[in-house]
This record gives sequence, structure tokens and C-alpha cells, in this order.
Amino acid sequence: MKISTQIIHFKTDGHTQMHDITAEINEVLEKSGLSEGQVCVFGIGSTTGITTVEFEPGLTKTDVREMFEKFAPYAKHYAHNATWGDDNGAAHLRSFLVGTSFNAPFVDGRLLLGTWQQIVFVDFDTRPRNRKIAVQVMGV
Amino acid sequence: MKISTQIIHFKTDGHTQMHDITAEINEVLEKSGLSEGQVCVFGIGSTTGITTVEFEPGLTKTDVREMFEKFAPYAKHYAHNATWGDDNGAAHLRSFLVGTSFNAPFVDGRLLLGTWQQIVFVDFDTRPRNRKIAVQVMGV
Amino acid sequence: MKISTQIIHFKTDGHTQMHDITAEINEVLEKSGLSEGQVCVFGIGSTTGITTVEFEPGLTKTDVREMFEKFAPYAKHYAHNATWGDDNGAAHLRSFLVGTSFNAPFVDGRLLLGTWQQIVFVDFDTRPRNRKIAVQVMGV
Repeated sequence: MKISTQIIHFKTDGHTQMHDITAEINEVLEKSGLSEGQVCVFGIGSTTGITTVEFEPGLTKTDVREMFEKFAPYAKHYAHNATWGDDNGAAHLRSFLVGTSFNAPFVDGRLLLGTWQQIVFVDFDTRPRNRKIAVQVMGV
Repeated sequence: MKISTQIIHFKTDGHTQMHDITAEINEVLEKSGLSEGQVCVFGIGSTTGITTVEFEPGLTKTDVREMFEKFAPYAKHYAHNATWGDDNGAAHLRSFLVGTSFNAPFVDGRLLLGTWQQIVFVDFDTRPRNRKIAVQVMGV
Repeated sequence: MKISTQIIHFKTDGHTQMHDITAEINEVLEKSGLSEGQVCVFGIGSTTGITTVEFEPGLTKTDVREMFEKFAPYAKHYAHNATWGDDNGAAHLRSFLVGTSFNAPFVDGRLLLGTWQQIVFVDFDTRPRNRKIAVQVMGV
């Protein structure tokens, strides 16, 4: 059993912008030399999210954003904004639901993803940021 | 520390149909012979979901479906559908929120679930499919 | 590679009440003496949730609750309530979305959380309860 952890850095624009991080995670996995186990991907920051999606622009640029606008619109007034002088209450709510925690198994050194299933890092925040995600590989 | 991975196959009808997979996961766990550790359950495919629920028909057949119809209705026009000639934009949005990644701990060879808490595989897609989920057990 | 599991007990009020459990998890981590690995936090019960949030009252007492009231209001009539004489259909729906499963990596004995990112246990149920969450640490 072996374990290794890497931090990956991103520059992001926010506003529910999505980044396909499957290649980066496969690279960490390949470097680890492990064959069977789990990769844990963690979004560092309470306005981020990690999940899977078919990474195509209809979903990532339009549909997901329209869905979130229904129940956590960016333009709404939030108690969070009033208290802290922030404008990113919507970003916190979206992150709360999607979650920042993600684990996926691999076998024969390959993640068990579907053909049209990519791992995405989502930045829900309202301004460009320098982001970090943690990728931890554990296995044999 | 030991690790083992199994693929479980399902025939599904879709449209947010739920499958109680707790027994299947307990079977994998029992066969592993492990006492303490984690089971990782992963939905292979970007229109699937893994979560927990009290598996009773009021929730699984009515309430969950009605909730999703509010913010990701099947009948809506989605950019995903327009681009790809698909009709399953709603399925992708629901999977995006619920997530395909699930980990739960076990002790003394038993999952630490609540009495009325079952692990469910959800197929959000819009047609019958042959599905696979990955179940990975890691522990001692 | 080592593994240890602890059960943490809470008295809760419910109605989407949030508990910052970061300190409790750090305590389990510290006692384990492990340096690098993952903590798995699991909400025992199908009306609970585990996720991360910036733990400040604007979000935890107002914004998150207002968001959930849009698509899973407590006062609505649910099939779950009709079938079982319960009144907590909304609690089940909220838990279904947020999820009870959470994993986060640690390095040098410290969780890789953001500065304003806390791990929260949410009780969505409609009455005071005695709750348990499982915290499992795995690593080297």
C-alpha cells in the first residue's frame, strides 16, 4: 500500500466556470506507478466544487449555469453578502450542494470513468482567483 | 491493508429510477473478508448517481422525482440536447448535483449505515441501459 | 498503512441546523498520529448531510435554509409523509442532494482545507435527535 499527494494550481475566472481535470489526475496517477486503488480529489476553498460531467459546452457553459440560477442566482441579495461585504453568497450555496470531496477507484492504473464522463473542477466564485486542488492517490 | 475491486452490472429503465444496492455492496464486503476500512462506490456514467436514502416508495418514486422536476425537468429544452441530438440534458444536471462518488466506512465487517439508510444507485438517463458500478473495498 | 475509526455523538435540534465539526475531526486525526492520508466522515442517518462551508451565520442560519425552502420546503405535503405518518420528507430530499459521504486528504498531519472552509454536519430532520457520525482515518 502506497500513498502520495500532489497540489495542482489553476488560474480561474469563476462564475461557475468548469475545468476538465481528468488529464491532470491521470498524470498524477501514472506518476504514482500504482495499479489498484483510489484517487481522492479535493477542492480547496468553500466556493469550489468537484464532480463529474460530460464535458461539452452545452452543459458546461449553458445548462448547468441556468439550473443554478434558478435556486442560487448570483444577482440575489444574500445574508452572507450583507454581513461580510462579499458578493459571492451564490457561490457558497452552489459549492455546498455540489461538494468539494470526490473519490474514484482505479484498476490496472486506469480510472473507472464512463466514456463521456470527465472529472471537473468548478469555480463558483465571482472573481478571478488562483486555486489549488489536492489529488491524493492511495493503493497498491 | 488489502484492496479489491468488483464491477456490478445492472439493467435499468432510467428516468430517476432508484436501485437499492446495499445488499450487493454488503456481499462484496463480506467476500473481501475485511474487518475495518472503507467501501468506495462509483457510478460509471455521467447520467448516474450514488447517494443514500430511506428506500421507501414515497421518496424513491414520487418525492425525489418531483423535486428534480422543479429545477431540472426532463421536458425542458437544453443546450445539451440541441447540440448533440440527445434528450437527456436533465439527466446530466441531476447527476452533476447528486454525484457519482460515494465512500462509507465499515467496522467489524459492517457498514456504518443508519437503520433506515440505504445506498442507492440512480439512473437519471432517459432510456433503458446496461449499467456498471464499481465497488472497491480497502482496509484491514 | 494504518486505519482507525471513531464514532462522534451529537445532540441536534434539526431543521437544517449546522455543526462545525472541523475541530472534532482534527482531534481524531491528531490522536491517530498519522501524517499523510484521508479522513472519511460519514453521516449516519438518511436525514443528515456532510459537506464544507464557510461557517458564518449569514450562510448557515439564513442563506442555505432559504435555498432549500425553494425546492424542498419543510411545509410541503410529501408522499413520504402520507405513507409513514412522518413530517420529514423535506429532510430526506435535502440529505439526498447534499450527501452523507465526505472524504478529505491530509498531509503533515493537517487537513488540506481552505482558510474559510469548514467541515459541517447538517441535521435536516424535524425534531431534536441524538446523532452519530463516523470518522475514519486511513494513512501512514
